Amino acid sequence: MKRAYRNGEIWEFEKEMSIKGSRERRRRDEVVLGLDGGTTSTVCVCMLIMPFDANADASLPQPLPVLSRAVAGCSNHNSVGEMAARDTLEQVMADALLMASSTRYDVRAVCLAVSGVNHPNDQQRILSWLRDMFPTNVKLFVQNDAVAALASGTMGKLHGCVLIAGTGTIAYGFTEDGREARAAGAGPILGDWGSGYGIAAQALTAVVRAHDGRGPCSALTSIILETLNLTSPDELVGWVYSDPSWARIAALVPVVVSCAEAGDQVANKILQDAVYELASSVKAVIRRLSLCGEDGKDNFHLVMVGGVLEANKGWDIGREVISCVSKDFPGTLPIHPQVEPAVGAALLAWNYLMRHNF
Amino acid sequence: MKRAYRNGEIWEFEKEMSIKGSRERRRRDEVVLGLDGGTTSTVCVCMLIMPFDANADASLPQPLPVLSRAVAGCSNHNSVGEMAARDTLEQVMADALLMASSTRYDVRAVCLAVSGVNHPNDQQRILSWLRDMFPTNVKLFVQNDAVAALASGTMGKLHGCVLIAGTGTIAYGFTEDGREARAAGAGPILGDWGSGYGIAAQALTAVVRAHDGRGPCSALTSIILETLNLTSPDELVGWVYSDPSWARIAALVPVVVSCAEAGDQVANKILQDAVYELASSVKAVIRRLSLCGEDGKDNFHLVMVGGVLEANKGWDIGREVISCVSKDFPGTLPIHPQVEPAVGAALLAWNYLMRHNF
Repeated sequence: MKRAYRNGEIWEFEKEMSIKGSRERRRRDEVVLGLDGGTTSTVCVCMLIMPFDANADASLPQPLPVLSRAVAGCSNHNSVGEMAARDTLEQVMADALLMASSTRYDVRAVCLAVSGVNHPNDQQRILSWLRDMFPTNVKLFVQNDAVAALASGTMGKLHGCVLIAGTGTIAYGFTEDGREARAAGAGPILGDWGSGYGIAAQALTAVVRAHDGRGPCSALTSIILETLNLTSPDELVGWVYSDPSWARIAALVPVVVSCAEAGDQVANKILQDAVYELASSVKAVIRRLSLCGEDGKDNFHLVMVGGVLEANKGWDIGREVISCVSKDFPGTLPIHPQVEPAVGAALLAWNYLMRHNF
Repeated sequence: MKRAYRNGEIWEFEKEMSIKGSRERRRRDEVVLGLDGGTTSTVCVCMLIMPFDANADASLPQPLPVLSRAVAGCSNHNSVGEMAARDTLEQVMADALLMASSTRYDVRAVCLAVSGVNHPNDQQRILSWLRDMFPTNVKLFVQNDAVAALASGTMGKLHGCVLIAGTGTIAYGFTEDGREARAAGAGPILGDWGSGYGIAAQALTAVVRAHDGRGPCSALTSIILETLNLTSPDELVGWVYSDPSWARIAALVPVVVSCAEAGDQVANKILQDAVYELASSVKAVIRRLSLCGEDGKDNFHLVMVGGVLEANKGWDIGREVISCVSKDFPGTLPIHPQVEPAVGAALLAWNYLMRHNF
């Protein structure tokens, strides 16, 4: 723990706790930390390690022994820079430990799943930084945030495929023997057309094209102008480029969905294209990993995560994606996770410890 | 000229020139200023007003009496902000006048054509700012930069259609009686898919999709990675988002063209789609203005401007666009301008003076 006191004030609480602990002379509870770091927010949960029989069927306790949950801002290094991202991650871990009355000496494993981890270099950089923060016996894992989302559906098993579609989109899969593959996740410039941003940008484009005479008129024009409090499509240009945040544009997805539900053809076409794009990401991962076996008929879990895939009354994008994937791969078993990705990350850490007999 | 000496040093040269002028007691030459303000650079030309017979066929002198040409940086207020844009415009006009040994008292008319003028509000704001800078008898015109590009092809007449395809794209047209219409020009988020940026972004996306397994392999992968000095498509994400400049991405267009020329199907499809998009912008403008008359067969001028439309050896995007537009509108008369848009702006100012008998 070379850097233990670099951010002195962050870890100050541990001193008092260790004095208290040595006075009470009790064996302290052991914990794992799970982090889900996204472009909007970062969540860290601290979960108790329960005694278990390594030979028995390792079913998880219900409810899960989550001791604490801390929330912070963006920890995507591409977005806020390396140092700010690290400060956020360190603070949110300290917060979660403090709320659980634990210290870093109680931690057995940390799984840090952050967006923006696209390359082994990113992984190594974050790992060596974590290494300096925790005692040497702590197991450390760094993953793309999609991996935690997968684990939140499979309760810690890295097997199957996850599709995330929120502001952005990515499909990520693992085979039982540890091979992995991803598709999409390269942001709006590089073809994430099924994302919330992609859907909303297509809708805004449809408004401009109808106004120009390049595309058909649709109900999108009046509903989007009304939502954004604008009077003419000419004003959309100023609105769009005044703030580069992707999430601000993606927030228009519910408007597009309600337009499609009311029967608008242009909005329907946009959602159908998004379904095709999202399904093609999933299918690319399934094929590359042969997740459905040689004949394409084996079962596999498809974990569905993100606002775009949540059920709507009439037009359910998630259901359409599942139906499109199932046509090619009838063994698709969809899962809508009951826990959040940070818990998925904690379960990954725990699972590792279980597999290696504590 | 309320603001004449706000930027005192910019106009300092006029004092000396007016002292010299009153000593020489000669009638000074009258000039017009034409400005083309883009996102990359701003050009101002100062052109002499030649005596002419208003009743005779008003053919232009050859060569055009351009006295001076000054160049500055970006003057798009959306990009650099209002104050910086104004300082740039004021400086480049002063530079052009100084180089022509003229002052603002010699100016009869100014035509300022700048990108980012999308709304009457933009126009009014810039007009009232110009009003304060020049003597009250000077005629002032503020236009979108596409209008100067049109005039550069029609030698000052606002009649016909211009298609610009550089980093961005826009189609702009005028009828003889002054009605106008535009299509596209709303930037990459809002569907300018035929632009240089659009073409290059599609090519980068094709590389990512081939790598993911979502799209066919193509020669684009190796040629783009080599051009950008990257070793894997995974590194494209970092490259793209590290610098938000549209021009940096659009600079890849020649690579896509050469790939298409070598027979690559994916690159060919991207260029064909771009041709379709560009042609559809032009056709939308022609239709809305009935530029080809009731039966669609009248002649009209189509001015072609910008790097994307410049002739390539094998794959000539501009030629394909003309052929696509001509199928629907056989009266299309393409023009590749012989002068730059700033000269087009000066010709617009001059034309106005001619039509109104000096």
